[in-house]
Amino acid sequence: METKSHINTILGSSDYLEFLRGKTATFLLSLSTTKTLEIEGITQAGIPGLIHLTPTLDSEFVCTGEVRCLEDLAETPKGVPTPALMTRAVHLLKPFSNLEILDLGMSKKPQLEYFKVHEFGLNPSEAINNGAKINALEVFQKGVEFGKTYECSDDYIILAESVPAGTTTAYATAQALGYDCIGKFSSSFKNSPDSIKEKTINEALENIKDEVDLFDKVSQVSDNMLIFNAGFVLGNSSLNTKLILAGGTQMAAVLLLANSIVNYMGGKLDSKNLALCTTKWVNEDENSDIKSLLEMVDFSINAYSANFDFSKSSHPALKLYDEGEAKEGVGAGGALCYGLINGLNDEQIIKQVEN
Amino acid sequence: METKSHINTILGSSDYLEFLRGKTATFLLSLSTTKTLEIEGITQAGIPGLIHLTPTLDSEFVCTGEVRCLEDLAETPKGVPTPALMTRAVHLLKPFSNLEILDLGMSKKPQLEYFKVHEFGLNPSEAINNGAKINALEVFQKGVEFGKTYECSDDYIILAESVPAGTTTAYATAQALGYDCIGKFSSSFKNSPDSIKEKTINEALENIKDEVDLFDKVSQVSDNMLIFNAGFVLGNSSLNTKLILAGGTQMAAVLLLANSIVNYMGGKLDSKNLALCTTKWVNEDENSDIKSLLEMVDFSINAYSANFDFSKSSHPALKLYDEGEAKEGVGAGGALCYGLINGLNDEQIIKQVEN
Repeated sequence: METKSHINTILGSSDYLEFLRGKTATFLLSLSTTKTLEIEGITQAGIPGLIHLTPTLDSEFVCTGEVRCLEDLAETPKGVPTPALMTRAVHLLKPFSNLEILDLGMSKKPQLEYFKVHEFGLNPSEAINNGAKINALEVFQKGVEFGKTYECSDDYIILAESVPAGTTTAYATAQALGYDCIGKFSSSFKNSPDSIKEKTINEALENIKDEVDLFDKVSQVSDNMLIFNAGFVLGNSSLNTKLILAGGTQMAAVLLLANSIVNYMGGKLDSKNLALCTTKWVNEDENSDIKSLLEMVDFSINAYSANFDFSKSSHPALKLYDEGEAKEGVGAGGALCYGLINGLNDEQIIKQVEN
Repeated sequence: METKSHINTILGSSDYLEFLRGKTATFLLSLSTTKTLEIEGITQAGIPGLIHLTPTLDSEFVCTGEVRCLEDLAETPKGVPTPALMTRAVHLLKPFSNLEILDLGMSKKPQLEYFKVHEFGLNPSEAINNGAKINALEVFQKGVEFGKTYECSDDYIILAESVPAGTTTAYATAQALGYDCIGKFSSSFKNSPDSIKEKTINEALENIKDEVDLFDKVSQVSDNMLIFNAGFVLGNSSLNTKLILAGGTQMAAVLLLANSIVNYMGGKLDSKNLALCTTKWVNEDENSDIKSLLEMVDFSINAYSANFDFSKSSHPALKLYDEGEAKEGVGAGGALCYGLINGLNDEQIIKQVEN
C-alpha cells in the first residue's frame, strides 16, 4: 500500500524496487551533446543560444549545487527550471553514496574537482539531419566495456542522462530501428514542436533509407548517449549489479536499441537486474506512451514512475512541470524514486526544491 | 547555492566536501591532557578542579550519551555545555559508522566497553611553562605509524580532539615554530584570559630560546595531541583515505606543525585528501583568525565551517555559544559538517541538542 502511494509500477513487479529499499546507490550521469540541438526551436532544454552547455551545467549543479560555467541555472524559455533541481534536492536530503560523470561528448567539460569524470574520447555528434557522423560500433563497444568492467562500490547503479534535443535523436533512432513508435516519444515542450522535430527526423531517416546494417543506420540518426548506454546495459547484464535507467522515453530508446542489437547479434538479454524509473509527468503524458515503448522489447522489464508532483507547491515556475513542461531529465525520475524508497516524502522534496 | 547556505568554504573548493556527501565516516577522537590546564584561569573547558577529566568525560559522552567518571556533564564556569553535545546530537541523528578513541595521555581512562580505545603508552604531558617534557620525536613517529597503518573501513576519517588548555599549547607551538600568529589563536573564553595565557606561553618560549632543533623545541611547548596528529596527517597522506581534521585553531596548529616537520625533513605533503572543518563560531571569531593560520602552510588545504548556530534555540546556555563562549571542540565543527552533508538540517540538530 505504501509503495503504491509513492511509486507507480508501470511494468513488471514492485519487488525489484522494494528489494532496493534502504540500499546504497551510485548515481552515474551520462552527458552528451548532439548538434541537433542547434536546430531552431527543437528543444527548450536550456538557455537559448547556450543549450549546448546544459549537460555541463546540469552535472555541475547535481554535484555541487553551483553552476560554474555560467551564472544562472539553465531554464527553458518559459522559465521552467532544469529537472536537475529535483535530483539535487534528493541528493541533499538523502545523498547518493557516490556520484560520477560519464563524458560522452560534451561541448565543455564541467568544472569539478574530486568527482570522477570518466572520459571515452568522444566528441559532440553532428545534427541528425546532417548524418550525425558517429562511429556507432565503437561507441557501443566502449559502453559494453565500461558496463562490464565498472566496479560499483554500492548496491546498485542509477544511470541518468542530460542530452538536449535527446528526445529527437531517441525518436529518430527508434524509427530507424523499425519500431512502431509514431507519437510515442516525449518532448521537453508541453506543446511539442512536432513540425520541426518531424521534419528533422524525416530528413535523418531519408538519409539512411538504403542502409541495411544496424550500426550504419544508428551512426547517422542517433546520439552518443543512446548508443553508449545500450552498450552499458549489455555489458552490465553479465554482472550481478542492479541497474536503474533513470529517464523517460530517451531511456526507453536505450532499451529499444539494446534490444535491436541483441537480436542483430542473435543473443538474449538477461534483464532481471534491469529497471527504468521515470517521473509521473512522463508516465501520464498524453502526447507520448512510455509503457507502449517498453512493451516493444523482447525481454521483460521493470518500470516505475515516482508519484511526485508540485501540486503542493506554490511556486509558479515549478507548477509548469504539472502543466506538462520539461517532464524529465538529469535522472529526476530515478532520483525521486530513490528518495521515496529511502524515507523521503514529497513535502520534504518540494520544500528542498523551493529553496 | 544550496551548499553555501549549509557549509561555508573558508579555503579551497567546495568539491571536497560535496564529494563526501552520502559517504560513510569513521570518527576518531584523540584525547590528551596537558598539565597546562592546572594553571589557574587558563581554560574554561570543564568543571573547575576536574578539568583534567574533560577528555575522559567527552569521550564517554560522545560514545554513550553518559558521563560515567562523574555525575554531571562538563560545563564551563558560565554554564556553557561542552561542544560534545553537538557531536553527540549529530551521532544520534545520523550516526558515524564507527567511533574510536585515541588515548594520547589521559589522566583517567574512559569507562567504555566494546569501543576501540587505541593505546600508545603516552602519559599526560607537563605544563608548558614547566617544559612539557614530551618526547616529541617518539610521539610524532607513533602518529606517523598509526596514520600509515590505520585501516579505515569507511570512506573517510573525521579526526577530532579534546584537550583542555589546548589552544594555549597550540598557540605556544605555532609561535615556537616561528609562525607569525600573534592574535590568531582562539580561546574557549569569550573574553580570552590573555594575560594568563600570554604569561604562560612567554615562560614556555623563554625556556626554548636557545634550542635549534625543531623536535627539541616542540618537546617543551606543545601537547601530545598536536604532535601525534601532525604525524597522523603525514602518515595518512601516503594512503588514499580522505581525512577531515575536525576542530578550530588547535587543528590549524596540527597543520602548521606538520608543515614545519615536512619542511624540516625536506619533503612535500600531498594534501589533496586533507581538509579542516570547524564551527561558525571559530570562523567568525573576531579574536582569532583561522583562515590566516591555514594560509601559512605551504600546501593547499580545503577548509570549511558549518553554518550552524543556536539563533533558533531558546535555551540560554546554548545561546552562550552564539555570544562567543566555547566555540569548538570534540569535533563539533566536523560533526556538524558531516550532519549537514548527510541530510540533516539545523532545526533537527538544535532540537536534538536541547534534548
